[in-house]
Amino acid sequence: MVNPIDPTATGFLLAENRNMPMHVGGLQLFEKPEGAGRGFAREMYEQMRDVEQIAPLFLKHPHRSARTAGQLVWLPDEEFDVEHHVRHSALPKPGRVRELLELCSRLHSTRLAWERPLWEATIIEGLRDGRVAMYTKTHHALVDGVSAMRLLADVLSTDPDERDMPAFWGKQPSRRREEPVSDGGASLADVSATTVRTALALASEAAGMPGALIRTLNKSVRNETSALSLYAPRTMLNQSITGSRRFAAQDWPVERLRGVGKATGTTINDVVLAMVSGAMRTYLADLDALPETSLISMVPVGLNAKQSHLASADGGNAVGAVMVQLGTHLADPADRLSAIHRSMKDGKESLSAMTPAQILAMSALGQAPAILGPILRMQGIVRPPYNLIVSNVPGPRTPHYWNGARLTGTYPLSIPINGMALNITCTSCDGKMCFGLTGCRRTVPHLQVLLQHLDDELAALERAAGL
Amino acid sequence: MVNPIDPTATGFLLAENRNMPMHVGGLQLFEKPEGAGRGFAREMYEQMRDVEQIAPLFLKHPHRSARTAGQLVWLPDEEFDVEHHVRHSALPKPGRVRELLELCSRLHSTRLAWERPLWEATIIEGLRDGRVAMYTKTHHALVDGVSAMRLLADVLSTDPDERDMPAFWGKQPSRRREEPVSDGGASLADVSATTVRTALALASEAAGMPGALIRTLNKSVRNETSALSLYAPRTMLNQSITGSRRFAAQDWPVERLRGVGKATGTTINDVVLAMVSGAMRTYLADLDALPETSLISMVPVGLNAKQSHLASADGGNAVGAVMVQLGTHLADPADRLSAIHRSMKDGKESLSAMTPAQILAMSALGQAPAILGPILRMQGIVRPPYNLIVSNVPGPRTPHYWNGARLTGTYPLSIPINGMALNITCTSCDGKMCFGLTGCRRTVPHLQVLLQHLDDELAALERAAGL
Repeated sequence: MVNPIDPTATGFLLAENRNMPMHVGGLQLFEKPEGAGRGFAREMYEQMRDVEQIAPLFLKHPHRSARTAGQLVWLPDEEFDVEHHVRHSALPKPGRVRELLELCSRLHSTRLAWERPLWEATIIEGLRDGRVAMYTKTHHALVDGVSAMRLLADVLSTDPDERDMPAFWGKQPSRRREEPVSDGGASLADVSATTVRTALALASEAAGMPGALIRTLNKSVRNETSALSLYAPRTMLNQSITGSRRFAAQDWPVERLRGVGKATGTTINDVVLAMVSGAMRTYLADLDALPETSLISMVPVGLNAKQSHLASADGGNAVGAVMVQLGTHLADPADRLSAIHRSMKDGKESLSAMTPAQILAMSALGQAPAILGPILRMQGIVRPPYNLIVSNVPGPRTPHYWNGARLTGTYPLSIPINGMALNITCTSCDGKMCFGLTGCRRTVPHLQVLLQHLDDELAALERAAGL
Repeated sequence: MVNPIDPTATGFLLAENRNMPMHVGGLQLFEKPEGAGRGFAREMYEQMRDVEQIAPLFLKHPHRSARTAGQLVWLPDEEFDVEHHVRHSALPKPGRVRELLELCSRLHSTRLAWERPLWEATIIEGLRDGRVAMYTKTHHALVDGVSAMRLLADVLSTDPDERDMPAFWGKQPSRRREEPVSDGGASLADVSATTVRTALALASEAAGMPGALIRTLNKSVRNETSALSLYAPRTMLNQSITGSRRFAAQDWPVERLRGVGKATGTTINDVVLAMVSGAMRTYLADLDALPETSLISMVPVGLNAKQSHLASADGGNAVGAVMVQLGTHLADPADRLSAIHRSMKDGKESLSAMTPAQILAMSALGQAPAILGPILRMQGIVRPPYNLIVSNVPGPRTPHYWNGARLTGTYPLSIPINGMALNITCTSCDGKMCFGLTGCRRTVPHLQVLLQHLDDELAALERAAGL
């Protein structure tokens, strides 16, 4: 039962240290089903805990010893202890979102232990609006953010009356697949994450590191591809980080973003980026730390980018990366939005002109930020290749339920790394665009104010679009 | 403002790893003052957080760099962030002690970050009996368990009407010392912890390790002193541990223990040890893991042991260590109690016959369990020198208050280490003997059942004593 760990996952495990835990998180909010009593959160916790069979992904843990010749391997946890992994917690009064975000910040700041399977879930009660929250933490060696969303979608139901549904980590009975995670119009999952991983694994097994990535980076330095910019300004975000996290989350109706997009001929994702741009401009200016040139954001995109109107490939994994000029040096919201739209279009076009090998290499940028740093340093590149990561992962379009509890919001918690202290990840859910901002608590002070800035910026974009 | 870290504290810092965090914890339970509203926990949290000045002990953090030539030094935290250290949490319903212990287990399992001062405190609301709990975590490099108790006593008041009291980590105004921590009859603090530390520090600076300890250990192997036994049986407790903790706590009226002691001519501490002995016997037998020979417990004692009727030196620090045969191989509770009484008496006598240098060396056993392991291995000693640590730290005898909130219980959370997976520490408070059991979650399964066994054993001792 010993399984080797593929090099990408190994990279995530080895890159991890106390200041840089390598787990992704998710905060889900559920509305109690009609008629549910005050004990619903406990029932949910018990259902999650007392799952009959756990999926193999959630039973294995990494192991390294002399017997494995120092290689990291997956071993099943022979003493699996579900109560270590599934937890029940509560918010102090008054049970606002503020208390919830504080708890999630703390939960996201602690590392997963290698001696156990690399995940935790906490059912959280005490929100004054009666909703029940769930925070999940999964090591990046197990899943990336997109896989985590699919895992979630796989286990939820579109039927509010369905019951006896297993926990997310339960072994799935062979249920019908509910529906594609989103549109499902074009089948974009030509290259699945598994394929990419395997290809990467092969490449890096041969070379000892992702060789194709190095070649792409070298090309970029010589400016042969516009998809990768190495001319990002230095900012306060691009420093070493500490281990403590701060998490902020909020959602806005997708309709508002769509409205701005329609009125300006841009995509929803452009609007997301414009919100981030305006918010970062205000934030940095307030701290007297706004660089003169534009911030550059790394944006993971779908492989078949032309057909996609969302940043991430619908139904597939976001496996490419585009470097987007956020236009933070521009004073006008409309100017910023159109700069982003152009930059995104350029990036996607150059991406679609790339060879599969180049795309595979680009994908490593999205999948392996932790691995990127050391590689860049080895290449003598000391400036940050980009300033922050903004990623938009499609979520379920229609209402989804877990044993009758409606999923009303899902907010990603991502991985700040040394040199990249802030990560913004959005996902759509139940008609809302849910933003999750994860930052190093020390390097990104007053992270919560970004929520207000995002809100202000959406209003400014609406005014600029004449709405 | 760079201060070198003394070698003992350095030892605690360097011995620490993911599986073996080196912090001590405390769980305090407070009764709300009369007339306090539902928001009392929040008020307490805010008072604790909004402290005007933090004591220097709680502002320094360890640092090591090329500039300090690789030496660990204390640096003030220039970006001290009180909200990282003082936290507010809640228990899920029904808010029993069980939920409290689960939360404390989790809080005690995570490490303190070196980039910040080495402490955390969490105010916990939601106990159904209305009490407010506080869990504190302090690195062993800052304080030992006894100092932590003194810190607590220093900041509490015997006056229920006193208000405007600072947080525990606040800078103390020069208040009168309330009263000695306990009896205060004999002045036993002849050698304070600081003195010991300094002496140890000097010795180990010279030798690179506590040389006197090595000499004492060598003598013990040759059986020249009965205070140290190296003939403890192997048990399931004496294995490598994992990083996750389980904590159990309960209290019993000191009067009941005193009653047994009076009827049998033994001390309260003997009765504590007999409770532990009986409980461990039942626990290990249930797991089919009871060794044929007696478990041996390391018991920290006061230096002037003859004058003390408690295991720890009243008013001073517990700086010696006695190895006590717990008599777990004996079937009868009365037999176990008298075996313990004899063994404890022998140990104390041999301790009082030791030279100051030997006593200093013994003290390292109590103060530096983490340092002990590697040293033992270096000496080729592979059997555990003892099976578990049982320590009894005197707490306040009279009711104490923090801004009117009465301290009704205080339960220590200690440090399991590799080879010593369970630690039992007791402290008296408000007429109760409060037990805190801290174990490795994996190595010590079903830790909670020990509470029932302790309870059963006290009843059995009472019956045996004809009470």
